[in-house]
Amino acid sequence: MYRDRIRLPSLMSKVMSAADAAALIEDGMTVGMSGFTRAGEAKAVPHALAERAKLTPLKISLMTGASLGNDLDKQLTESGVLSRRMPFQVDSTLRRAINDGTVMFIDQHLSDTVEQLRNRQIKAVDLAVIECVAITEEGHLVLSTSVGNSASFAILAKQVIVEINLAQPLELEGLHDVYIPSYRPTRLPIPVLEADSRIGSHAVKIDPAKIVGIVISNQPDSPSTVLPPDVETQAIAQHLVEFFKQEVREERLTNTLMPLQAGIGTIANAVMHGLLDSPFHDMTMYSEVLQDSTFDLFDAGKLSFASGSSMTLSASKHAQVFADLDRYKSRLVLRPQEISNHPEVIRRLGIIGINTALEFDLYGNVNSTHVCGTRMMNGIGGSGDFSRNAHLAIFVTKSIAKGGSISSVVPMVSHVDHTEHDVDILVTEQGLADLRGLAPRERARVIIDNCVHPDYQEALNTYFDAACEKGGHTPHLLREALSWHINMEETGRMLPI
Amino acid sequence: MYRDRIRLPSLMSKVMSAADAAALIEDGMTVGMSGFTRAGEAKAVPHALAERAKLTPLKISLMTGASLGNDLDKQLTESGVLSRRMPFQVDSTLRRAINDGTVMFIDQHLSDTVEQLRNRQIKAVDLAVIECVAITEEGHLVLSTSVGNSASFAILAKQVIVEINLAQPLELEGLHDVYIPSYRPTRLPIPVLEADSRIGSHAVKIDPAKIVGIVISNQPDSPSTVLPPDVETQAIAQHLVEFFKQEVREERLTNTLMPLQAGIGTIANAVMHGLLDSPFHDMTMYSEVLQDSTFDLFDAGKLSFASGSSMTLSASKHAQVFADLDRYKSRLVLRPQEISNHPEVIRRLGIIGINTALEFDLYGNVNSTHVCGTRMMNGIGGSGDFSRNAHLAIFVTKSIAKGGSISSVVPMVSHVDHTEHDVDILVTEQGLADLRGLAPRERARVIIDNCVHPDYQEALNTYFDAACEKGGHTPHLLREALSWHINMEETGRMLPI
Repeated sequence: MYRDRIRLPSLMSKVMSAADAAALIEDGMTVGMSGFTRAGEAKAVPHALAERAKLTPLKISLMTGASLGNDLDKQLTESGVLSRRMPFQVDSTLRRAINDGTVMFIDQHLSDTVEQLRNRQIKAVDLAVIECVAITEEGHLVLSTSVGNSASFAILAKQVIVEINLAQPLELEGLHDVYIPSYRPTRLPIPVLEADSRIGSHAVKIDPAKIVGIVISNQPDSPSTVLPPDVETQAIAQHLVEFFKQEVREERLTNTLMPLQAGIGTIANAVMHGLLDSPFHDMTMYSEVLQDSTFDLFDAGKLSFASGSSMTLSASKHAQVFADLDRYKSRLVLRPQEISNHPEVIRRLGIIGINTALEFDLYGNVNSTHVCGTRMMNGIGGSGDFSRNAHLAIFVTKSIAKGGSISSVVPMVSHVDHTEHDVDILVTEQGLADLRGLAPRERARVIIDNCVHPDYQEALNTYFDAACEKGGHTPHLLREALSWHINMEETGRMLPI
Repeated sequence: MYRDRIRLPSLMSKVMSAADAAALIEDGMTVGMSGFTRAGEAKAVPHALAERAKLTPLKISLMTGASLGNDLDKQLTESGVLSRRMPFQVDSTLRRAINDGTVMFIDQHLSDTVEQLRNRQIKAVDLAVIECVAITEEGHLVLSTSVGNSASFAILAKQVIVEINLAQPLELEGLHDVYIPSYRPTRLPIPVLEADSRIGSHAVKIDPAKIVGIVISNQPDSPSTVLPPDVETQAIAQHLVEFFKQEVREERLTNTLMPLQAGIGTIANAVMHGLLDSPFHDMTMYSEVLQDSTFDLFDAGKLSFASGSSMTLSASKHAQVFADLDRYKSRLVLRPQEISNHPEVIRRLGIIGINTALEFDLYGNVNSTHVCGTRMMNGIGGSGDFSRNAHLAIFVTKSIAKGGSISSVVPMVSHVDHTEHDVDILVTEQGLADLRGLAPRERARVIIDNCVHPDYQEALNTYFDAACEKGGHTPHLLREALSWHINMEETGRMLPI
């Protein structure tokens, strides 16, 4: 059985139930699990672990690539398994536990986690649980729909549990490019010179003696929750397309643009969709997550290559793509998130990075994570990896939220994830602000005039004028700077009606 | 005359007075000048330009490497020459003009400026004014005590004015390593593999036909204004030495440490001095500015190599080092600031980055630039280039300022230059907080217990406890978060006596 999936015969004896595998996880362990943007996460073992903890409580530190699907963070939180969690999550139950201080969450740049692990600056991974489509004749791991941090977790952990997921097709083999930077002080340049550079191996090379359990699962990834484009997100996309056209006219870009990165979610996906109706062609992506829009761009003949760390698709797009995987395979690669998000590569290639802001302020500082400065949404993810070193660091958001009670443009952001040093372009459905080469007072003018919803323009102008009167390179009235957030907390609206 | 300094005979005809050279600068031009941390700036032409503007007003955008010496920013500000200034400055007169909105200041990561120029994302340099020790037989430029952005300014400008400074010894020739990254989309890895890698040329290769004027000057760099170590800075150094020893015991570092970077200024210099009395040896530096401490470490046999972008020394250290330059030369290199500060190289080498904070908050966010969130001090400089990609991102500051009326640790920083994602270690004379792998609530505990001055500990504990009661991943009371800065603005003290 599963000869095509477990090709090293000596490993057949390691096949066990998910419950038996979960029993190998001990209280207090640091566990590294596969999974990135709800793709390719280990599914059976974490579920069994949550079940086990209902009877016998235990706590672990859980590291992943990024977010998990199949409600696993919910189940693990509800069973009280998580004492610590890093570096990213999107689950509402876990989010509550993070915000009430029950789970310690370490919100990291996605390229950083395994660097810190390798340097032993954070607690070592005791055990890795990795979803695979197969184990090779050499005992190496063929990953599934994400690479994430799986390769380094498996390499650095003392013990590895493999989930062979029969719901993930064997055709995924060959899609991955597993490259691990050499150790300092003799580290070499990462040899990615173009989006389509292949620099590593198809499988994760580990000593098969470390494999302590193999679990057979058969459960698909959760489908993407991305919503279709709406009027506002289409307007954002349109503003960006016009901006790119202008960059081409001024010979700062060509019609092939530069390698594109788009953050996960509805707005970034809509922006990428907007490129379907554009003069741009032979585009490439050097991104984290490949979403529906990536494959729509392939199908439209617009995209020539896409590099990512995972594929997260809607149910219908998944059915279409996986029915025809071989057609896309030569134009796709999945890399470790350390490489998909590596500052060295991003700076070299000159990425156009498009990420979603929760809010931004008059001066271009961006909050990606904290509602009213305190409550974590998801995490910074890769947005910092990309924006710091991008050719163009673009942040997008709708200008208002909650029916207009919230303005996404505020006097001062309540939390900073991206400083004005790292932000080039801001876009809302209202318009686009090009901040390149501008001083703070100039940035404020451009942002108010182009990005702010009309309902909030006058209030921001009033604030800005009064702040300028008071003076300073970055003028602020400290007594009012956070007043919109305070109003929001206290009345549910940023400004009185 | 000056045959050893101007070795391409056809250029002798370009020798002119500083006033004549300054007359080549036109109203509205963007001018790129040499100079980094008050070292190697063009001296005669900007002075003549300031004099000229007293009679005939004109405005320019001025770009440099970093700060200028010899009161040049002061003179240019007082003469009303500066409409825009980037990417860094340290002059009190210019600072006032920036803060009152007279001069538009663009505060940038020091590695970013020429990348944006090369990509034509900011206004092109019309004319470059570059201090040199010599022009070669090929008409190439041999720079003086800094490289900064000089090479790219000279390469990208339409016209170049050279200042040959006779006060800068010819022995500086050979010290520089000029490397310009290749253009995208075919950029190659930057081949710096160790601190002492030499990857470029000794001189800046330009078409000598672009040289429109040569001015002979004879004026030394301004001496460093760094103060000697005091009790507090020595305590900071001691905490760091103890921390490094602990890292060695835990086998995360060896006794040669990893390449060191230290920001400019008194505290960073004192920290480097602290390494004189330490078990560490065969250390290297991969930094921006080489200060007195670098040469003290050489003389003590502690340092084997130092890479920087400039040398900024006190008068006495300058006399000693320049009397004996050949003895140091094989262990020194000066690089373009794009390379000394390049994210790719910093991440590859695993730098220990030590920079000064103006203030930091409970959760490890750092303000490097803005007093009370509004008034610019100097600029972010290279601190972001290093901290984002360092092996260890360390920020140092004294725990109080202005005789205790200011705490350097506050509930919420009034401006963010470095987010908690990018800060590993915080040090004051009180102690050291190791934030690696900690969630925000854990960071706050470690920071309050280790870094805060006793006079402010109770108030921060009270704030933190109340904020935690309210909840959130990063607990804050928005009504009180900036109250210490508001008190400071209104009463001159962060807390009532």
